[in-house]
Amino acid sequence: MPTFAIGVDLGGTNLRISAIDEQGTLLEKVTLGTQVSRGRDFVITEMSDAIRELAARFSKAGRMIGVGIGIPGIIDKRTGMLRESPNLTGWQEYPVRDEIERRLNATVVLENDANAAALGEAWLGAARGKESMCMITLGTGVGGGIVLDGTIWRGMTGMAGEVGHITIDPGGPPCKCGSIGCVEQYASATAIMRMAREAITNGRAPQLAQAANARDVEFSAKVVYNLAIQGDQPAQAIFNRVGWALGIVVADLVNMLNLNMYVIGGGVSGAWSVFSPAMFDEVRKRSMVYAATAPAERVTPPAGASAEVSTAPMGQPTIITRALLGSDAGLYGAARLPMIATEAREHASESVRKRA
Amino acid sequence: MPTFAIGVDLGGTNLRISAIDEQGTLLEKVTLGTQVSRGRDFVITEMSDAIRELAARFSKAGRMIGVGIGIPGIIDKRTGMLRESPNLTGWQEYPVRDEIERRLNATVVLENDANAAALGEAWLGAARGKESMCMITLGTGVGGGIVLDGTIWRGMTGMAGEVGHITIDPGGPPCKCGSIGCVEQYASATAIMRMAREAITNGRAPQLAQAANARDVEFSAKVVYNLAIQGDQPAQAIFNRVGWALGIVVADLVNMLNLNMYVIGGGVSGAWSVFSPAMFDEVRKRSMVYAATAPAERVTPPAGASAEVSTAPMGQPTIITRALLGSDAGLYGAARLPMIATEAREHASESVRKRA
Repeated sequence: MPTFAIGVDLGGTNLRISAIDEQGTLLEKVTLGTQVSRGRDFVITEMSDAIRELAARFSKAGRMIGVGIGIPGIIDKRTGMLRESPNLTGWQEYPVRDEIERRLNATVVLENDANAAALGEAWLGAARGKESMCMITLGTGVGGGIVLDGTIWRGMTGMAGEVGHITIDPGGPPCKCGSIGCVEQYASATAIMRMAREAITNGRAPQLAQAANARDVEFSAKVVYNLAIQGDQPAQAIFNRVGWALGIVVADLVNMLNLNMYVIGGGVSGAWSVFSPAMFDEVRKRSMVYAATAPAERVTPPAGASAEVSTAPMGQPTIITRALLGSDAGLYGAARLPMIATEAREHASESVRKRA
Repeated sequence: MPTFAIGVDLGGTNLRISAIDEQGTLLEKVTLGTQVSRGRDFVITEMSDAIRELAARFSKAGRMIGVGIGIPGIIDKRTGMLRESPNLTGWQEYPVRDEIERRLNATVVLENDANAAALGEAWLGAARGKESMCMITLGTGVGGGIVLDGTIWRGMTGMAGEVGHITIDPGGPPCKCGSIGCVEQYASATAIMRMAREAITNGRAPQLAQAANARDVEFSAKVVYNLAIQGDQPAQAIFNRVGWALGIVVADLVNMLNLNMYVIGGGVSGAWSVFSPAMFDEVRKRSMVYAATAPAERVTPPAGASAEVSTAPMGQPTIITRALLGSDAGLYGAARLPMIATEAREHASESVRKRA
């Protein structure tokens, strides 16, 4: 009998639930307007009810093997509890995983949302078929996830992959993490807005100023992007800064980890055409490991975005490219989690059976 | 019958060969004055003869299971050839591993020297018993090695661990790797000498100037260190800069990888007392992951050096400390390589036997 899993993305504003089969086909996706602000018990009840309903709908097509939930924050895998989560107040010191398992009578796996997105891109997206990759997610903040040999690298306490807080410029702008000059201060939507406001204040960005005062359209990173592709130089300078910072962090990652692929995702990655030239310039300049995997040639990947592929002398290229799954990456990755857990269990019991 | 392995450190100036048993006891260490400049064939012959002699001397005490060789440069594990090596010209495109295996009729494993040193510290040194660690080696340059779950993380083409070329300040001094502002430009012995000369040129470092002109003692990073511990402020400022840069790179590593331990080794690590306070200040400020593993407390590790241990809420602390094995780390790590290879082979054949 075929199997499927439930992937959940518990975001700061709403809750998305999907049923995804073992081949990675999205069977159904439900977006609930659940307000996280209504509290833990309310959210867990709504989520459990929706999962139960979705699972029942596909019960004739296959066996539901478990539920994966992507959550912004730090998760203690051992206890299945949240340690820190910016949006989910009141969820700490509460057995989230066990409570949902109890209600659904199914295996539940919790994971940090950026890690889940990385796993999704590694499974079915830009890094499909690559052994090891790092995903950098550019949204309100900058998140990251590292997949080594097909498995999320969680580190000692599940906090690995905080790529957004790599130092770009030790004298740069203060970051909410307590440090200064983090990549999040240059490459997030929030940073783009800050840089736009700085340019307006300096009086050298008339078009940005006009857009900021427009009554019909809310001023956003998307508006800055639109001006950049129309040729507005102050807007382009902002995206050059985004690319510069991303280039430094990608070069750091290439030098440190020598992975097969680096994937840039999240909302801001939509501005790939305006920030990626500066990013590639910086990576080429700063990473001897990237340079060693030259000669570089530009290719056109399936999504139509320009990626840069370096052909390594040992036959394997370093690839830096944009994500393919958009905001669904986290849903796919979340659904993949119980599948990996099941595979590991089956592999273990197989070994035991063969030894017996 | 007990077993032992041969660990070789093929440095830029001389060649060290050791016999080390499976418990990590150093049976014997030989330092040959072999001049690498005399060329590949000469070095390989001297090395093979010395290994054969050493192995014969312990043949009654145990079985020699193989030879591990640490080499500065990039190694293609698949072919057993050197891809790039700053000091070993003429070694490229030559089957180094196969040639030595043929001469000795034994398993030979090649590894980058910084990776071998990291493995040595992980096996028997500061990171003994830790699952995952990163070692930063401060010498003429800055090298690095990452050990994840007990195994060297080599990356896609064996170039992982180039921690010395992480960007510290994007507008910093040029690096020989082609980038600018790499940590190697702040924390190597070469960088310490450059900063000392800059301070002398600025006319604000009379004691450094005097030391630089002294005829009896060669001006070196060690001399700068001696002035720093005697209270000379310009010399102390240089080591504060070393600590600042190391703090940034360690914070980057902690945020990215969340490992159990970060070990600082190499000759410059002898100046731990003068650079580590600035390093810890910077890590504390720049790493939310390190901060999350607080409360921090200073402890005195076996070596007598002050290490900083943070007790993680999940019971595991992040530890930043200095290396314990000195220049022997690479020898121990090199000897460990054929042991790991043998264990992997035995594990595999065990599985096959049990399945049969």
